[in-house]
Amino acid sequence: MASLRDIVTSASINLLSAFGFLMAFAILRIQPFNDRVYFPRWYKKGTRSSPTRSGAYASKFVNLDCRTYLNFLNWMPAALRMPEPELIDHAGLDSVAYIRIYLLGLKIFVPLAVLSFMVLVPVNWIGDTLERAKDLNFSDIDKLSISNVPDGSKGFWAHIVMSYVFSFWTFYVLYSEYKVLATMRADYLASETRRPDQFTVLVRNIPPDPDESVSEHVQHFFCVNHPDHYLTHQIVYNANKLASLVSKKRDLQNWYIYYQNKFERTSKRPLTKTGFMGLWGTQVDAIDHYTSQIQKLNEEEAVERERVKKDPDAIVPAAFVSFKSRWAAAVCAQTQLCRNPTLWLTEWAPEPRDVYWDNFAIPYFELTIRRLITAVALFFLIFFFMIPIAFVQSLANIEGIQKVFPFLKPLIRIESVKSVVQGFLPGIVLKIFLAVLPQILMTMSKIEGYPSISALDRKSAAKYHMFILVNIFLGSIITGSALQQLKTFIDLPPTEIPKTIGVYIPMKANFFITYIMVDGWAGVAAEILRLVPLVLFHLKNTFLVKTEQDRYEAMEPGSIDFPVGEPRIQLYILLGLVYAPITPFLLPFIIIFLAFAYVVFRNQCKSTFMSRYGSESDKFDYFLLLLERNVVVCLCKVINVYDPNYESAAAFWPDVHKRVVIGLFISQLLLLGLLSTKKIGRNHFALLPLPVLTIWFFMYCKGRFESGFIRFPLQEAMVKDTLERATEPQFNLKAYLKDAYMHPVFKSSDVEKSDFTFEEEKSPLVATTRVATKLSPDVNSSSPVQSDA
Amino acid sequence: MASLRDIVTSASINLLSAFGFLMAFAILRIQPFNDRVYFPRWYKKGTRSSPTRSGAYASKFVNLDCRTYLNFLNWMPAALRMPEPELIDHAGLDSVAYIRIYLLGLKIFVPLAVLSFMVLVPVNWIGDTLERAKDLNFSDIDKLSISNVPDGSKGFWAHIVMSYVFSFWTFYVLYSEYKVLATMRADYLASETRRPDQFTVLVRNIPPDPDESVSEHVQHFFCVNHPDHYLTHQIVYNANKLASLVSKKRDLQNWYIYYQNKFERTSKRPLTKTGFMGLWGTQVDAIDHYTSQIQKLNEEEAVERERVKKDPDAIVPAAFVSFKSRWAAAVCAQTQLCRNPTLWLTEWAPEPRDVYWDNFAIPYFELTIRRLITAVALFFLIFFFMIPIAFVQSLANIEGIQKVFPFLKPLIRIESVKSVVQGFLPGIVLKIFLAVLPQILMTMSKIEGYPSISALDRKSAAKYHMFILVNIFLGSIITGSALQQLKTFIDLPPTEIPKTIGVYIPMKANFFITYIMVDGWAGVAAEILRLVPLVLFHLKNTFLVKTEQDRYEAMEPGSIDFPVGEPRIQLYILLGLVYAPITPFLLPFIIIFLAFAYVVFRNQCKSTFMSRYGSESDKFDYFLLLLERNVVVCLCKVINVYDPNYESAAAFWPDVHKRVVIGLFISQLLLLGLLSTKKIGRNHFALLPLPVLTIWFFMYCKGRFESGFIRFPLQEAMVKDTLERATEPQFNLKAYLKDAYMHPVFKSSDVEKSDFTFEEEKSPLVATTRVATKLSPDVNSSSPVQSDA
Repeated sequence: MASLRDIVTSASINLLSAFGFLMAFAILRIQPFNDRVYFPRWYKKGTRSSPTRSGAYASKFVNLDCRTYLNFLNWMPAALRMPEPELIDHAGLDSVAYIRIYLLGLKIFVPLAVLSFMVLVPVNWIGDTLERAKDLNFSDIDKLSISNVPDGSKGFWAHIVMSYVFSFWTFYVLYSEYKVLATMRADYLASETRRPDQFTVLVRNIPPDPDESVSEHVQHFFCVNHPDHYLTHQIVYNANKLASLVSKKRDLQNWYIYYQNKFERTSKRPLTKTGFMGLWGTQVDAIDHYTSQIQKLNEEEAVERERVKKDPDAIVPAAFVSFKSRWAAAVCAQTQLCRNPTLWLTEWAPEPRDVYWDNFAIPYFELTIRRLITAVALFFLIFFFMIPIAFVQSLANIEGIQKVFPFLKPLIRIESVKSVVQGFLPGIVLKIFLAVLPQILMTMSKIEGYPSISALDRKSAAKYHMFILVNIFLGSIITGSALQQLKTFIDLPPTEIPKTIGVYIPMKANFFITYIMVDGWAGVAAEILRLVPLVLFHLKNTFLVKTEQDRYEAMEPGSIDFPVGEPRIQLYILLGLVYAPITPFLLPFIIIFLAFAYVVFRNQCKSTFMSRYGSESDKFDYFLLLLERNVVVCLCKVINVYDPNYESAAAFWPDVHKRVVIGLFISQLLLLGLLSTKKIGRNHFALLPLPVLTIWFFMYCKGRFESGFIRFPLQEAMVKDTLERATEPQFNLKAYLKDAYMHPVFKSSDVEKSDFTFEEEKSPLVATTRVATKLSPDVNSSSPVQSDA
Repeated sequence: MASLRDIVTSASINLLSAFGFLMAFAILRIQPFNDRVYFPRWYKKGTRSSPTRSGAYASKFVNLDCRTYLNFLNWMPAALRMPEPELIDHAGLDSVAYIRIYLLGLKIFVPLAVLSFMVLVPVNWIGDTLERAKDLNFSDIDKLSISNVPDGSKGFWAHIVMSYVFSFWTFYVLYSEYKVLATMRADYLASETRRPDQFTVLVRNIPPDPDESVSEHVQHFFCVNHPDHYLTHQIVYNANKLASLVSKKRDLQNWYIYYQNKFERTSKRPLTKTGFMGLWGTQVDAIDHYTSQIQKLNEEEAVERERVKKDPDAIVPAAFVSFKSRWAAAVCAQTQLCRNPTLWLTEWAPEPRDVYWDNFAIPYFELTIRRLITAVALFFLIFFFMIPIAFVQSLANIEGIQKVFPFLKPLIRIESVKSVVQGFLPGIVLKIFLAVLPQILMTMSKIEGYPSISALDRKSAAKYHMFILVNIFLGSIITGSALQQLKTFIDLPPTEIPKTIGVYIPMKANFFITYIMVDGWAGVAAEILRLVPLVLFHLKNTFLVKTEQDRYEAMEPGSIDFPVGEPRIQLYILLGLVYAPITPFLLPFIIIFLAFAYVVFRNQCKSTFMSRYGSESDKFDYFLLLLERNVVVCLCKVINVYDPNYESAAAFWPDVHKRVVIGLFISQLLLLGLLSTKKIGRNHFALLPLPVLTIWFFMYCKGRFESGFIRFPLQEAMVKDTLERATEPQFNLKAYLKDAYMHPVFKSSDVEKSDFTFEEEKSPLVATTRVATKLSPDVNSSSPVQSDA
């Protein structure tokens, strides 16, 4: 078993490797040729131009200014002076709320760690059970854990009392954070400028009408039932075929531009082949070929566009209905319209860029069937996922490979290669499964039929959380597959389950400490490096990028990976809560992880602040700034890297809250189970009120705060409406909303002509550099609000 | 063990006793001096005048017309021809929905019984395990049960398949009944005439405002946030002291009238004593005494009335806010008003007579604490209720009685008396507890803080259902106290619990058959007799009734005892579902119970019909009618006896549905557990999808129908509003709503003057006799809608 020395060694190694990642990152990121990998968001915003266009040739690719290599850690102290409103302004409330999960963890665990080291560690240390039992294997850490307290000792009362203190402290932190987030969300929604989704309600399951089209039906229905408030509506088309045509055309256009560029550079008309990827077939003039191809596709597209617009079958029984005021939209979104509650279902329209267009046509019955199937599938995925993997692993052995790829035979015959393959192959199969798991879960959520990307993310996160809980947390404690665990749980009495798990908990402390260091510490550092996107970008840049637009797309900003990231933080919080009363020694490791991640994210604020108000004239300052951005602002990908797909205004916080409460509940049950094996009579029943209180606390918070994340209060809507009527009485809302909820394919054809921009960017609350000239066309722009200039 | 013969004997005895009850009832009820006990509702409606006022002296008390004693069963065939809309019109939707619970049971069990006797009984009969094992005790019934099928037999597939058939049939019936009820409710709400609660929303948790009174605050808030729709509001006073003064005054007034009557009869001024109950103290002139007393109280009451109206502390932070249209009220009831979702809570206002006035001042936090405490208390009540009872039982033994009542000693010394006392005393203690249990549960629901009587009834029913489930159903199967069961359940693995219970199920069939006969059959018949109210009425009439009004109050109509009655029906449905695949022989007994109760309730419709359209001129016909009413319409207390406190438009149906689904779920688990002991390999896992499907079915129905019972669709509201605007454009809604939601004590002082009446009674959809002259003053009238004549 690991001694204290082992742990310290391991911790140093992991800290050093994290540091190494940071160094590598610092050096790589200030190299101008990596600029696009690490600052994609700034490019998309148009505030950063390609550094390869100016300066000496060498300095285009390698940063030669030595000063930038020093001082790269001086952001650290400054990182904690942060104006949060600024950050919300720049990165959105979602990102800030995400960072606050780390803060929540820190707020819980720092006092918990102090208290446990002050109270529980001495109690554990005094009861020297383990030293007396010389024949037992035990580590130094175990001396600080509950295992060192002799059975039947009065010392366990310390653990019981501290468990209450811990729970109440967690309640307090959770409650106040929920309150802060609810206020932040309300303030954010109140301060938002005009947005189409404030006026719009998504109506689904519109019943068919034999005499009217969907559009007429919607109009008549709302003219009757919201006579004073109905403004306009937009029907939803099933435009899958059209979307594929549009994407095909975009591809051809890129080739066309590429050959055009080539022609301009070489003054020689380029040739291409008509076959697949231009690799075979008749040779033709490339520019003419693509011109005609695009022409043909244009016609096809026009026909399809007409068909979709005219064919009644292409219309989905759903619509975006807009109202004259936010008040009316809030009313419509929260009320039931029709006697049959499965028809005319209303809900808040998601942001236009947040809409998931494929899920609008599902009738209510099918929706419930889909959810049933997904629930069953999720159960099997969680508890039986080892079966197919074991099957694949049994196939993917040396002999199997030899059969499929006979040419590898000589290589595999080498003994060392063989052993490596045999050792790693099963692990790799598992790794591949775990890597595609989030994608599988996302697909399941899509099948469940949620109409917005943010909802899909939240539901996937919930599924991943359950998977982690069963397969990583429980799977590590009770070694064995989830299936075996399921069998154990079914065969054990309900009181025995926490007992069985609880007994294992102290023994697994070392394992989890290592896990936190390897997966947590090094994981955060490794993620900074963005190794995969780095390699991908350079590969694409070298082989595939034909146009400026392609380079733009190759940046692949991505967004915060909420469905994967959040459940992982929850695992650390769960570990902390479980071990706080049992092995307090684990807490500092979690605190370091949380603090590391938090400081890093926090720093972005300072950078944002400087980039706006600081002097950028001085070249040294500029490099300093660049450095800061490189090292940290890129760490805090929120600013520089992530281009959020949507802004849900922290709609995920109720889920975060719920999962921390689940963690707390589990930790209480496990402590109860552990103590019931310690021969302290029936004293462990003193812990029984805690889980009940936890459930009550959850329900209280749910009633107190949750509706703030689901519904929009009429009072707020009325205030905004009144304000707007006073300041802009002449505003033409109908024109503003006209094309807000158009399927993206209907826009893409004229996207380069029109001047799509966010309303908020036209009149930002704080002057930013975001309104600078745009370098790249807004092809991917998912902010389709037509300006009403 | 009981043989078939025993069961038949027992059934005959029970049928005979039920018949005897019916006979006793038929004879008692047509005696005019019992008239008021059996027709209180007609008296309250004013359509029936006291028979003691006319005719020969003897016929005032005893019915001498022999013909009425014959033919008293000829209502039976007519009972099934029933126009349901009529019944809804007369007795309200709640009563009709209540009757439909029996219908639901019949619809489920008749096909189930036919199928089981066709399929399962032969299978069970063929597998002659019990006959071969000659040494076992078994009854004839067991030969028809699943116990007769040998272990490992393929015959169990019949049970598995039939379990699917049964479940799907139950799904179908539940679904279609839910659908019918939802439609009935929607139709009922749509056809209702104007009622104050249609325009009114109950607003609770109004935050305090330092500058404004509650009334001003409410007015300003709604003027701002519902500017186009707000009409008026009514604040709620904390009038507990005033209410006690009013009730005291009413008491004195009764005494006054009594002495006045006496004086008129005897022409001698009556005397009374000033002490308690007029039993001691100085002797004074009674009429003068009470006149002065009433005068004094009048002054006190006026002072208190002023205080309540002026004292800001007497105002509860709640209000009834009325809107100009049903649409606006529906909007306000369904939306969130304030940023803080625990303030300005809105919900549909209950009917004025349904309001429970004591629960308006509870802030949100206290409410959740109260619910936590009640939940914990309910848990202890269910699982530990035997502890205090055992304690009381141990006290209430012969020795204890001898100590407390020494004068009983000689009596108790008699051996036979002693044994009777010792045998019955514990049972009586238990009976007393069970009799007060509904009251305890109702008190718990009141503590939980629901604002309407209908909600209190529903919540009490839910609690009673849990109690019955644990203590009667499980308690009868696993003999032993609930506490012992709890221990068993905690110590058994989750898979073992259905197994353990399942094994006992077939053995308990005889017990439950007897239970159904004694509690069900005889229970229904005994309830017809209304023995307790009968005795009470005559006692009161003899000793206490001083005035006509007192006699009116002595009738004590009561209402359908939903919190007790519904959970008991659910027990029978649960028994049927559990035994359908196991011991089909039990089903006919349940069907007889349900049919008996159903036909009886159904008959009231025919009577109603006749009383309206039939000829009442012929005296024989009249007596026939009277007889019918006596025998059956009184059976079906809905018409004649029960005076519903409220009309919730079948708002309890989702609960009924849920409990039947719970029963189905339990039956599936128990069959699974039973089959897992039958050595049929893993074939019993074929039943595993059933519980999953049941949960899905429940969630589907919940989504499909439940909101119809909670929310009011805007479309319907709009239709009614439009219709009303067209037909009555000049209607003064504000005056109509002015005093609708006034605390009853503010009305009682002038209740005898004003002409309170239901709007619907003034313009009934169907001409009824209900608008006849009123015999008795409407003191208890809980329909305080001031007419707008």
